[in-house]
Amino acid sequence: MVDTAVRPVSTPEPERASHAAEPRIDQAAVGAALLGTWADVRRQARQMIKDSAFWKVDGLTIHDHRERVFGQLQLLVDAGVSGVAYPTEYGGRADNGANIAGFEELVLADPSLQIKAGVQWGLFGAAIQQLGTKKHHDLWLDDVRELKLPGAFAMTETGHGSDVAAIGTTATYDVETAEFVIHTPFRGAWKDYLGNAAVHGRAATVFAQLITGGVNYGVHCFFVPIRDEAGAFLPGVGGEDDGVKGGLNGIDNGRLHFDQVRVPRENLLNRYGDVAADGTYSSDIPSPGRRFFTMLGALVQGRISLDGAATTGTALALKIAVTYANQRRQFDGGTPEGELTLFDYGKHRRRLIPRIATVYAQAFAHDEFLKKFDGVFSGRTDTPQEREDLETLAAALKPLSTWNALETIQEAREACGGAGFLAENRLVGLHADLDVYVTFEGDNNILLQLVGKRLLTDFATQFKGADAAKLARYAVGQVAGRAFHGAGLRQIGQAFVDAGSTARSVEYGLRGERQHELLAGRVQQMVTDVATRLRPAAKLDATAAAELFSDNQADLIAAARAHAELLQWEAFTDGLALIDDEDSRQVLTWLRDLFGLQLIEKNLAWYLIHGRLSTHRAASVSKYIDRLCARLRHHAQDLVDAWGFEPEHVRAPIASGAERARQDEARAYYRDLAASGVAPVTEKSLGKKKR
Amino acid sequence: MVDTAVRPVSTPEPERASHAAEPRIDQAAVGAALLGTWADVRRQARQMIKDSAFWKVDGLTIHDHRERVFGQLQLLVDAGVSGVAYPTEYGGRADNGANIAGFEELVLADPSLQIKAGVQWGLFGAAIQQLGTKKHHDLWLDDVRELKLPGAFAMTETGHGSDVAAIGTTATYDVETAEFVIHTPFRGAWKDYLGNAAVHGRAATVFAQLITGGVNYGVHCFFVPIRDEAGAFLPGVGGEDDGVKGGLNGIDNGRLHFDQVRVPRENLLNRYGDVAADGTYSSDIPSPGRRFFTMLGALVQGRISLDGAATTGTALALKIAVTYANQRRQFDGGTPEGELTLFDYGKHRRRLIPRIATVYAQAFAHDEFLKKFDGVFSGRTDTPQEREDLETLAAALKPLSTWNALETIQEAREACGGAGFLAENRLVGLHADLDVYVTFEGDNNILLQLVGKRLLTDFATQFKGADAAKLARYAVGQVAGRAFHGAGLRQIGQAFVDAGSTARSVEYGLRGERQHELLAGRVQQMVTDVATRLRPAAKLDATAAAELFSDNQADLIAAARAHAELLQWEAFTDGLALIDDEDSRQVLTWLRDLFGLQLIEKNLAWYLIHGRLSTHRAASVSKYIDRLCARLRHHAQDLVDAWGFEPEHVRAPIASGAERARQDEARAYYRDLAASGVAPVTEKSLGKKKR
Repeated sequence: MVDTAVRPVSTPEPERASHAAEPRIDQAAVGAALLGTWADVRRQARQMIKDSAFWKVDGLTIHDHRERVFGQLQLLVDAGVSGVAYPTEYGGRADNGANIAGFEELVLADPSLQIKAGVQWGLFGAAIQQLGTKKHHDLWLDDVRELKLPGAFAMTETGHGSDVAAIGTTATYDVETAEFVIHTPFRGAWKDYLGNAAVHGRAATVFAQLITGGVNYGVHCFFVPIRDEAGAFLPGVGGEDDGVKGGLNGIDNGRLHFDQVRVPRENLLNRYGDVAADGTYSSDIPSPGRRFFTMLGALVQGRISLDGAATTGTALALKIAVTYANQRRQFDGGTPEGELTLFDYGKHRRRLIPRIATVYAQAFAHDEFLKKFDGVFSGRTDTPQEREDLETLAAALKPLSTWNALETIQEAREACGGAGFLAENRLVGLHADLDVYVTFEGDNNILLQLVGKRLLTDFATQFKGADAAKLARYAVGQVAGRAFHGAGLRQIGQAFVDAGSTARSVEYGLRGERQHELLAGRVQQMVTDVATRLRPAAKLDATAAAELFSDNQADLIAAARAHAELLQWEAFTDGLALIDDEDSRQVLTWLRDLFGLQLIEKNLAWYLIHGRLSTHRAASVSKYIDRLCARLRHHAQDLVDAWGFEPEHVRAPIASGAERARQDEARAYYRDLAASGVAPVTEKSLGKKKR
Repeated sequence: MVDTAVRPVSTPEPERASHAAEPRIDQAAVGAALLGTWADVRRQARQMIKDSAFWKVDGLTIHDHRERVFGQLQLLVDAGVSGVAYPTEYGGRADNGANIAGFEELVLADPSLQIKAGVQWGLFGAAIQQLGTKKHHDLWLDDVRELKLPGAFAMTETGHGSDVAAIGTTATYDVETAEFVIHTPFRGAWKDYLGNAAVHGRAATVFAQLITGGVNYGVHCFFVPIRDEAGAFLPGVGGEDDGVKGGLNGIDNGRLHFDQVRVPRENLLNRYGDVAADGTYSSDIPSPGRRFFTMLGALVQGRISLDGAATTGTALALKIAVTYANQRRQFDGGTPEGELTLFDYGKHRRRLIPRIATVYAQAFAHDEFLKKFDGVFSGRTDTPQEREDLETLAAALKPLSTWNALETIQEAREACGGAGFLAENRLVGLHADLDVYVTFEGDNNILLQLVGKRLLTDFATQFKGADAAKLARYAVGQVAGRAFHGAGLRQIGQAFVDAGSTARSVEYGLRGERQHELLAGRVQQMVTDVATRLRPAAKLDATAAAELFSDNQADLIAAARAHAELLQWEAFTDGLALIDDEDSRQVLTWLRDLFGLQLIEKNLAWYLIHGRLSTHRAASVSKYIDRLCARLRHHAQDLVDAWGFEPEHVRAPIASGAERARQDEARAYYRDLAASGVAPVTEKSLGKKKR
């Protein structure tokens, strides 16, 4: 990668005045890069949802909203875009990447539609596809794709969310009748929060502990009919409506419970484990742990689509807030321009522009992620290593993008004031609907903890069977590291280099590869520190070991987060290389720098404490960010416009140009009034006259 | 204040084991301190709203919710608690503090009710009371109090939110008819976001530019009838419904506009400015600026009640999340206890316990605030200085508590997983309803900017007419300060002191008064830095000066925030002195320390860069917080219970004990199953047997 940020800019000062002479991005080129590998599929999806039949209508009753979204699913079937990932013999296109890319865009129409489609075809359907075998596909996949068989994905229980291995529902094989008996043994084992469960589902893919011959073979998935054609529960099946939720009220989430419900032996989705008629269990994967994670891993696509949809929703929020910030005027600056636009205020720029950088990083990272998924699920690159990497990537990226969605949408809503609180301007609805993304398909903290454990494992692997020399080198590195941050030697050295330097040469040490070094170094150090602190755990009893882990849990999660941020930074940097247009690459390099610097600023104390930045250089980080925000201020509109949202996707009156029209009308009124000669004078001017 | 945290704790280790021997708070005593000066009024209000007629019902249509809340206002009238602040001759109790205290508690019933009551009696009614005179009180105050005259407070315009001075609506005096002509000259001058405007309002207190004799005397307030008895707009008045909002949908926000609407001269609320029949303007306050701020200042109570209600709402969210964290179990720790409670996890403690500290600080600060308000508005301490302090306090505290409400409620919702997303568990509703608190009654950033400007003014006052010696001392201080953080002399000195010290003695430097020193020092330094950087503005042209301000705006707001946090810290510390019970004071001192330390941790990089903490001591801040969280883990339930919320206030199934019952049932099931001898064995144990 060429670090074009290093290129000196000849006019360091008044961006405001000189911005006409500055490079501008080529919106089409940047837009294509943002749309990524499946750009055409995304464009088609966006074209389709320009039809208002797909749009969210605010203020519907929960009943009407649910029925509207169910109707929209049928529209997707009619448009031939359901089950795109399914095999061609079941009407699909066997295209995993395109399937996810297309569905992610539905978030622009109504997040309830995106998630309800995800429940039907991506969870319920994918369980049949990924965990079932040909007999199951033959029986159900057509009906699932065509919405003739709406279904729920019955994994989560009231008592167990992210800890799926511990669910209570049992599926006990009865060799006499060759049936599985699905049973809910206690209230905490009720299935809960299931889309399609409250109203529309006719069947469910139920996860339960498979018991045969007195042995529990762990969690497996079963196809269980739950309602008859008239919509009444089948015998032994019961449930409840989850009622009103914080958002996504177009989805009928509910609870299910089973009282000794019998299903044929064949209803076990048996790709990874089977039970013969005589009750004998068999599986290609002997390790129960690995089998469990393989089954869960087959359903990774949910996390991928959340990462993508959260990124698109965040970009939409920024499109709205940035457009408003460039049109809305407030408070007279005492300048010839009169009232200033919101973006004339330094604080407002600081609130919004770094967030544009983050959503760009997310978009580039997401495309890498989706390509890896497509490679694995198409079979082209389906190796255990790639699968493991894919799952780690999912566990790393989904938390960051979904949390950032909530933070950014909230900041956007506040940046639009009272107008931001009106449903018509979309922001509050986006926040409400995307809220649950941070805890479903794996709670974000639990996912990051998985990433942290993977980092610890990789760390340990380096020293497995290590010879004495290798360990010695490690020990030396450790001690040296400690000496550095304990006594601040590195810090003093750097301070020496920085002494007498100008602001720009201090900044030089914060660019391109140096950002990478800082970000990567932090991950490495944090993992090493946690690993070192956890080492005594092996010698402790279970309670003390659990406490030791608990004491280090927050740091482990922080290390995982740092790792995920590094991945985003790297993806953004790799993405720069894809931009041919030089001006665009220049502006995007500033944006990448802004992304990197805000990560460093957020953890500035860490860099100082660990002697990785001098106080002098650390102090320059925030100033550099301020300068980048000022420089990017006149590119902000281009950058959010490059996402290519059309008015039918934005649909927020405050981002429609109405605000500019109102401002122009008001300014014209006062101009005309002044020209008329009958304008009232101010009391102040009166006082002057009197004197 | 005695810093009891300095008292050494003999058992530094296993809090988990020794917590039975630890001090416990006296919930009644602490609860009384939290309820504050108007504890009895708050208890009465809470008793009243135990009646389910006051509760929010989720899933109502916007129409039904609005009608329900309007009906609830009538219940308040019937209970005799409307207009408590009004003079006794109009059925009130002339009790300003009690009025606010009582209404704040309504947030527990339904935030829409709190805000709708605030619109009717605290904004519309208070405008008549505070800005009007006896003739206005005689005409309308009884009807307002009894809800016979529902009204809107028509200040904000579509084009002008926080910048009230620039509103476009005009009130031009017609000497011929002795009437004011209320007029909306362009679309941006429509009144907007007004509660009671869409449906229920019969009149409005309209803010408009008062023009008489060709002179604009600035913003004044007018009583304007808007609807007839049948609910139809009066001639010349028009409006629109703001429609669905992100929350508070029990309030009928809407827009109003006026086409040459005539009202009698007497409808000018003339306490601070009047127009004689012949059109002559008069006012006791000659300065237009001071007159404007006096009028706005008369309405400060809105900000006060938001501060209090946000604090109560935040405490409720923590009550729910902490109760759940102590009952919910997830993931087997491999320990004899089996599955661990959420609070056994270090990360979960870190998420919730520091937030308990913050809401306590808010409560103590709010009571100080309310006492100051009551003193000023009762006339006991009504001096210009006290009024100015009160307004600065309002501008400082309301932003912090309302932002913290959103952050804490969101963290609480996430900490409750999927259950947190269900409306029945309250958290999503609280977030949605309290969202707009951060931008209404003054956008939080604009309010903090006001505080910042006050800090700058105070700073400048120190040097007004300063003699040479004083300035020289200042200059020396400045240079010394710079030398410290530039070259890190103070840092090195401190590092020397810290060398060889134990962790506890490092912590010693982070306790009690040392926290105050760090927090106060930061405010002082930040204000000095911004003031110094802004000094050249006086010599610049308007555009350059505006840019200089813009470049420093974010830092000014940060300084104001630091100031507000210091005020909260001081109030918490003063509050400790009110606690007689020694154990309670001990636990609350830990909590105060946690509050102070998290403020320092949040700005740790600043303390390092400015040489106010050594890297060694800075590194100990986070560890100290971890230890305090562990120590307070077994007090967390007591601390949230001390708020005294009863089941009718909490109303969240997950905080009702249902979760504990479910967990107990599940554990009993597995215990009985194990005892029965017919429990299925694990596959793993099977493998061991085979080997």
